[in-house]
Amino acid sequence: MGFGESLNKRQVAFFTDNVKNSEAFRKVTVFDTTLRDGEQTPGVSFTLDQKIEIARHLSEIGVDVIEAGFPASSDVEFQTVRKIAGENTGAKICGLARSVKSDVDRCIDSGVDMVHVFIPTSEIQREHTIKKTHEEVLEIIREIVDYACSGCDQVMFSAMDATRTNPVELIEAYMAADEAGAAVINVPDTVGVFTPSMMKPLVSQIREKVRCKIDVHCHNDFGLAVANTIAAVEGGADQVQVTVNGIGERAGNADISQTVMIMEAICGISTNIRTEKLVETSRLVSRLSGIPILPIQPVVGENAFSHESGIHSHGVMSDPKTFEPGIMTPEMVGHRRRLKLGKHVGRHAVRQMLSDAGINPDEETLDRIIFKVKEISGKGKKVTEYDLFEIADSIMGTSGAEKAIVLDDISIFTGNHALPTASVRAIVRGEEKIFSATGDGPVDAAMKALLGIFPGKIELKSYQVEAISGGSDAIGSVTISVEDNKGHIFDAGASGSDIVLASAEAMVNGINIVCRSGGFSFEK
Amino acid sequence: MGFGESLNKRQVAFFTDNVKNSEAFRKVTVFDTTLRDGEQTPGVSFTLDQKIEIARHLSEIGVDVIEAGFPASSDVEFQTVRKIAGENTGAKICGLARSVKSDVDRCIDSGVDMVHVFIPTSEIQREHTIKKTHEEVLEIIREIVDYACSGCDQVMFSAMDATRTNPVELIEAYMAADEAGAAVINVPDTVGVFTPSMMKPLVSQIREKVRCKIDVHCHNDFGLAVANTIAAVEGGADQVQVTVNGIGERAGNADISQTVMIMEAICGISTNIRTEKLVETSRLVSRLSGIPILPIQPVVGENAFSHESGIHSHGVMSDPKTFEPGIMTPEMVGHRRRLKLGKHVGRHAVRQMLSDAGINPDEETLDRIIFKVKEISGKGKKVTEYDLFEIADSIMGTSGAEKAIVLDDISIFTGNHALPTASVRAIVRGEEKIFSATGDGPVDAAMKALLGIFPGKIELKSYQVEAISGGSDAIGSVTISVEDNKGHIFDAGASGSDIVLASAEAMVNGINIVCRSGGFSFEK
Repeated sequence: MGFGESLNKRQVAFFTDNVKNSEAFRKVTVFDTTLRDGEQTPGVSFTLDQKIEIARHLSEIGVDVIEAGFPASSDVEFQTVRKIAGENTGAKICGLARSVKSDVDRCIDSGVDMVHVFIPTSEIQREHTIKKTHEEVLEIIREIVDYACSGCDQVMFSAMDATRTNPVELIEAYMAADEAGAAVINVPDTVGVFTPSMMKPLVSQIREKVRCKIDVHCHNDFGLAVANTIAAVEGGADQVQVTVNGIGERAGNADISQTVMIMEAICGISTNIRTEKLVETSRLVSRLSGIPILPIQPVVGENAFSHESGIHSHGVMSDPKTFEPGIMTPEMVGHRRRLKLGKHVGRHAVRQMLSDAGINPDEETLDRIIFKVKEISGKGKKVTEYDLFEIADSIMGTSGAEKAIVLDDISIFTGNHALPTASVRAIVRGEEKIFSATGDGPVDAAMKALLGIFPGKIELKSYQVEAISGGSDAIGSVTISVEDNKGHIFDAGASGSDIVLASAEAMVNGINIVCRSGGFSFEK
Repeated sequence: MGFGESLNKRQVAFFTDNVKNSEAFRKVTVFDTTLRDGEQTPGVSFTLDQKIEIARHLSEIGVDVIEAGFPASSDVEFQTVRKIAGENTGAKICGLARSVKSDVDRCIDSGVDMVHVFIPTSEIQREHTIKKTHEEVLEIIREIVDYACSGCDQVMFSAMDATRTNPVELIEAYMAADEAGAAVINVPDTVGVFTPSMMKPLVSQIREKVRCKIDVHCHNDFGLAVANTIAAVEGGADQVQVTVNGIGERAGNADISQTVMIMEAICGISTNIRTEKLVETSRLVSRLSGIPILPIQPVVGENAFSHESGIHSHGVMSDPKTFEPGIMTPEMVGHRRRLKLGKHVGRHAVRQMLSDAGINPDEETLDRIIFKVKEISGKGKKVTEYDLFEIADSIMGTSGAEKAIVLDDISIFTGNHALPTASVRAIVRGEEKIFSATGDGPVDAAMKALLGIFPGKIELKSYQVEAISGGSDAIGSVTISVEDNKGHIFDAGASGSDIVLASAEAMVNGINIVCRSGGFSFEK
């Protein structure tokens, strides 16, 4: 998609002729290597079913080429690539191969649309891995590209460690691949040592010497993978290699969401990506890879469009463009805007949040509520919307009576020879209710015991524990989303050193916020 | 520090004249705003003691200026800034102020070394926040900078939303501040919409118009904060604003580790930072902010110098520079290099890891061990060093007998009216041992019950749970470090939907790996 309105045209025109979008409509294709380089993230491994799920999703959001794996690396990998290639998802499927004929054969046999051959070209990698001279490498490139082209229409050639290769030798390598029939040459910053001001002229120079398409693959060792990818596009690259959430070897690769949104929203370059699916894509791969999404992660993180401080949230309430990029809105990437509570919260935001829940304190009471919010968060504690209503209730004297559920007793038992079991006794609108449940663990059991009191009325939509780090007595922070039977979703949370009790408390808070909102008609 | 050897001189000389380091020795100062913009991260709040701990640490690692807070925002904030300014940590302490005299007065009263005044200059922010014309803003700048200079030697002026400001008006604003006596002007990319190829020429143009120092403050909405900061340095900036782990409003700010290491290792620019403390700094702020460090985080993440895939780990075993930046080593940043197990592991790495533990299988047995490691990780499971030894034991027929501890029974009980309690029955070198303990939560109780069997022999050094996301039955992954009484540290882990049992299992694995290594002399 193209957004049409990309803000910085004026600045672009004024300051720089680097961004070429003003010249003409330009399109860059997206090559995703989540399933290959992304899976090489130490600690990450996808099952076949997970790889197929990711491949289908990537195809659905408009990725042009999916690198599915490295067929020669093992039988399992070969079968996996073959299965993905057989899925006909819509995207082209690519397989990786070392510059040896048996690897290329395995790749072609797996049924991929594109063969990606690579060989190290830098002195350090040549000497320590394949023990070949530059001249020998050139000869291998000519032979292997020619060989691959005889079995596959689309051949891509990578000069591994391009950015640490003698530039003269590097260009000779690319010219050899181009002349031998490669459809695409890839410029990898294999160990992530380039900066944008080095990448752009490198790609420009290569652009002048080859006829085929240029692709770029950047690593994030210094945090420059996305910027270097964009610099390569400015230098004339036709295709970008990315992974979802930037996963990959060491510090990973260029992130798909950031790379695509810079091109679309800042540079005015089009891609085929359905950007409104980017948050969903990020969450899918986070779940399957086990690599979480940080709240501060650009574009897709929980905070990307969240505002806490007074100046910022007041500005955003007047016009979101004041303290957001504007050229990128939450809607464009499938996200949502949120005002958050905390030490720096301003009165406009608090008044709005209370008013949305039908609470309209006078100015002096509002001051007292804000003072309390700041006091609690000043102690290093999180303040959720649920907590805000609690504070308002307590200050305005409306507390207690309206609470749908008051937890009287909860007991949880687990062990290696025991079924995790929880029992609860709660006062629900004045009436005692008792329920027990078993679960997949003590947290699951506690949640099911609490939800059992309200059958069919309320559902747990998501459960998250922030990473816990420290000792075994460290504080864990639980956030949940619950949905009532009218489809409204509410967040609640709790924290403590007992992660099981904190989870139960979050659920009690969630049930109360649903009941308070009148989200479902409550029957005794 | 300066490393002297910065790799890319050749490429720099060949491709670009952008990086000016070849001209002469150059130094850039580091301004850290973790305590101000960093604390404005929605959900993050530091206590006074935490702020002092962070300020002392930042000063110790060589940060030149620490922005301690925004004194006029509240009494608590004023007292906090005053306390930090009174600490005399060594770094200069800076306070933030809107362009109003009362804010500047509060700032000066708090005892800071530097006053940082700001005013929005972009049309969108001027109109929606302060409702002033460009001419009115110029007048305010002249007055407030002059006023601040009368009370403080060091005044910094920020044109908020500089990168969305009409460039002609922006330069007029900076010239006004410069003429009024500002020591530093700051160029903020407030909503993170710039790219490096826009930032460098902008700073170059400003550089030609002002005599004072230029500072840069970049936001990470599109993932370009670090790259834009470096581009500003290339354009002539004298100072960079950073935060630890890049925390800050929305997607945060430029990360200190990445920014400093690019300057030091790639560009050959010196800073005062003791880079070998960067990992420690990152961990401190992660712990206090609650924002975890992703394994793939550049420079400081667990994977930054970790290698799993066969080609990479084989290369690194021959020479680490093959598949690491080389110009940045783990030692430079206080990190460590690790070989990791997984689906893509190669035989050289596995042989080395086994041999380090005194296990030397023949080639055929090694093949079977590797097959098993790949099979397990192919199912999406993590394989730790402990698991590798288990696999080797089972294949080589050395299993069972040597295990120091076999967990027979563990039971854990918690509740809102109960003291979290765990009891264990274990076979320790053939003898039954029973122990029970209470703790701060069920996990803590279980860990204490297990450690109680080995008093004084083994200590839990760190406990981590990866963020859990999904339903309440989602899989949680626990990693621990344990230390024996000779100071050796070992990692172990376990995962499952019962986070309490997974923690206990990780501890049992940790105890066994310590005992196996002969780390302490075991008494019955």
